[in-house]
Amino acid sequence: MWSKWALQTDLYQLTMVGGYVLEGKEEQCANFDYFFRKVPDDGGYCVLAGLADVIDYIQNLRFSGEDLSYLENLGMFSKEVLDYLKDFSFTGDLWAIPEGTIVFPHEPLIRVTAPLPQAQLIESTLLNIMNFQTLIATKGARVHWAANGDPVVDFGLRRAHGPDGALMASRAAYIGGVDATSNVLAGRLYGIPVRGTHAHSWVESFPQELDAFRAYAKVYPDACLLLVDTYDTLRSGVRHAIQVGRELREKGLELWGIRLDSGDLAYLSKEARRMLDKAGFPNASIVASSDLDEWIVETLKRQGARVDIWGVGTRLVTGFSCPALGGVYKLTALDEGGERMVPKIKRSDNPEKITDPGVKKVVRMYDKKGRMRGDVLFREGERIPKERSFRAHHPIFPHVFKTYPKGFQIEELMVPVFRKGELVYESPSVHQIRESTLSNLKKLDPAYKRFRNPHRYHISLSPSLFKIKGRLLQQASEREMEALDS
Amino acid sequence: MWSKWALQTDLYQLTMVGGYVLEGKEEQCANFDYFFRKVPDDGGYCVLAGLADVIDYIQNLRFSGEDLSYLENLGMFSKEVLDYLKDFSFTGDLWAIPEGTIVFPHEPLIRVTAPLPQAQLIESTLLNIMNFQTLIATKGARVHWAANGDPVVDFGLRRAHGPDGALMASRAAYIGGVDATSNVLAGRLYGIPVRGTHAHSWVESFPQELDAFRAYAKVYPDACLLLVDTYDTLRSGVRHAIQVGRELREKGLELWGIRLDSGDLAYLSKEARRMLDKAGFPNASIVASSDLDEWIVETLKRQGARVDIWGVGTRLVTGFSCPALGGVYKLTALDEGGERMVPKIKRSDNPEKITDPGVKKVVRMYDKKGRMRGDVLFREGERIPKERSFRAHHPIFPHVFKTYPKGFQIEELMVPVFRKGELVYESPSVHQIRESTLSNLKKLDPAYKRFRNPHRYHISLSPSLFKIKGRLLQQASEREMEALDS
Repeated sequence: MWSKWALQTDLYQLTMVGGYVLEGKEEQCANFDYFFRKVPDDGGYCVLAGLADVIDYIQNLRFSGEDLSYLENLGMFSKEVLDYLKDFSFTGDLWAIPEGTIVFPHEPLIRVTAPLPQAQLIESTLLNIMNFQTLIATKGARVHWAANGDPVVDFGLRRAHGPDGALMASRAAYIGGVDATSNVLAGRLYGIPVRGTHAHSWVESFPQELDAFRAYAKVYPDACLLLVDTYDTLRSGVRHAIQVGRELREKGLELWGIRLDSGDLAYLSKEARRMLDKAGFPNASIVASSDLDEWIVETLKRQGARVDIWGVGTRLVTGFSCPALGGVYKLTALDEGGERMVPKIKRSDNPEKITDPGVKKVVRMYDKKGRMRGDVLFREGERIPKERSFRAHHPIFPHVFKTYPKGFQIEELMVPVFRKGELVYESPSVHQIRESTLSNLKKLDPAYKRFRNPHRYHISLSPSLFKIKGRLLQQASEREMEALDS
Repeated sequence: MWSKWALQTDLYQLTMVGGYVLEGKEEQCANFDYFFRKVPDDGGYCVLAGLADVIDYIQNLRFSGEDLSYLENLGMFSKEVLDYLKDFSFTGDLWAIPEGTIVFPHEPLIRVTAPLPQAQLIESTLLNIMNFQTLIATKGARVHWAANGDPVVDFGLRRAHGPDGALMASRAAYIGGVDATSNVLAGRLYGIPVRGTHAHSWVESFPQELDAFRAYAKVYPDACLLLVDTYDTLRSGVRHAIQVGRELREKGLELWGIRLDSGDLAYLSKEARRMLDKAGFPNASIVASSDLDEWIVETLKRQGARVDIWGVGTRLVTGFSCPALGGVYKLTALDEGGERMVPKIKRSDNPEKITDPGVKKVVRMYDKKGRMRGDVLFREGERIPKERSFRAHHPIFPHVFKTYPKGFQIEELMVPVFRKGELVYESPSVHQIRESTLSNLKKLDPAYKRFRNPHRYHISLSPSLFKIKGRLLQQASEREMEALDS
């Protein structure tokens, strides 16, 4: 799908590309990290998603004749720059943490090492894809956790942000642990299971509710799930559903269930359950929908709601309570002609906003029971201490350490995706990614999963990385003082 | 762009379509209204957007062979239904209020009169497009109003919800009154002006800030806008920008301006303005960005911020503070074999959720000064009193009226878009729509525009419509009582 999106970038990426080309920085190699600083909803973790689309985007990144004419007509770009864009293709390296991995603030999730203009150009759409899909995969994981084993279905198409907004949300929510979607296109393109029955309009298009239910049962005898709240949920809807259930049973068929879409879902589900059980339909499912999110699902379950399947829409696919992940893409190292890339830092008066310098790798530490106990950033190429215990540093506070005794299992999280522009990675299917999410989430202690005041997962710097960071901060502050005195 | 989106629909639309076809309701005509019940952010109005994409979607709505194979493999649809979908095309009528119109809760914005399965099938994507674009056009209008004449630029691509989420947001924000975008593709496709200069990484890729500024001025001497907060905004960034401004002036060129992207924008913009003025650059512009929205812009202006251009990103394109417009699409009339469509109502214990029945038109009332004073819903075909004063009814409370004295100008808002499936409407350009928004907003009293506790605009029912609504509610309640006794 990505072949026509080359111009989907911020204009400043192109002006910078033009500048790099004209300033002789066309081949100067740089490293950029994609990372975020805060978990949405003050949560304890994120579920990473979006890499498959980033790969597709980068592979198809070519400027068409129409793109180039448009740029030429802007009158900002010289022939040299337009020629550069005409021949553009990505020739750099890209490492990434695979989709479905549980990730945390300040760790590099994607690492792009490429000539400056190339690394720069892909920033905007890389951020667009990763920020959105990670946001929704995380939300999906939260709703999945709240549902505590009950299936969750994504109903969000009608409130999602545009057609891709819906499609990517369905993909990401599924990766996060949601079980199915109402979006048929997401079903066809990704193989996500699709679900759906009928709306109020179906019921209203018949003279009586009972006629509508009977007609639906006739057309879909094997999948008869009836929406019962068009008129009066309990006194009309559930009664009629039971009546149709009895008629189905006379033909050797079973009522699949009912859907509640308004009112107090705790009360209504308990009453409906009681009525269905009493009438001999203990296996009929109760589906609930109506502005649900992870907090409401959690509360309804605590209040004993007898819901079997949760339909979650608007508040899932828009990330409603926090509709953006603020992921950024920052320069961390630059080739200045020496043997190695020179680590770079962005200083800020806000310590949260100081970047971690250099080309880095992310190492996950598991205890003997296989539980995630912390992540440590190392310099790329740095040896990871395996046979001995070691201390890792808090990224900001100089005197805070975390000690990892020996015997911890380690896992390097980043894998190579592009090497010199060549794709060396095959994206797993969404089903495999979803399995990976669910298995990864099992290794994360529930303390990090609660919605209020979750425990903070440790992200540390290797001693060597911490030393470099300190040195660069010192240099930056000296340079600033010099500039003041000049 | 819409040719491959036929399956972008909720599965229940297709199961209902299948049911209508098999139940002999394939040609039964129905009327559906698109409307919303609440203005996002508790605001006083919405700016309508999205119609051009809805038209494009409906015109291109054809199921491909791959779509049909996928549906066949789901095992839910009979050959008869698949054949119906194979030959599907929209043959109905669609009326709509044009994009760029100021609209309010409970008034029909799009009216679809078509055979039941057709009207049903288009629901999901129609809602997806209209809800999102109207949300963002409204947000754009609010930011535009807060900026009080200062240009506003959309910087949201990197946080928007997927590629279309970004593209449609740029279009909608522009329709709402935003002046330009950083998204180059939105520039090429819609002709929206594009803006952008450079990022922190540009500065960091040079040994010193001054080198970076000089290089930028060399490459873009006519559009030299410098980002000044990479190191220390006032003591380094603005000082270096002034130095480069002087160097440009020696060549007969002028510094375009500076951009602030962090810190206290009120303080920094005032100090930067003072420094620029003192150095002889009173015409250099100050651009500000950094998690802005309409409330922050309003407050910064009240605190005397000296910002000339506002860059607004995440909180514009995601509708951050309220990321979904809850628009719905409801059955309001049905052909039951008689001469006229029979008006239908959806009763609810929540009076806000009771629908207004029948096929309706929306009439806007202007006073002699041309100001919008209220909208009245009439039955389609009902004569609008022009030469005499009349009373219109509150849609819910029986004893609340609004009186329109004679002499009011009236405007019928809905225009025909499709007649018997044929497109009879040409969408204006986004520039024309934006002009229309700005001119419409002038006719709306500021009382409806304030962000806190805005005045509520009157939406009333014609006496005839009110009578029908009352009768249907009475019948519905009698039917419910009968059902209980049966």
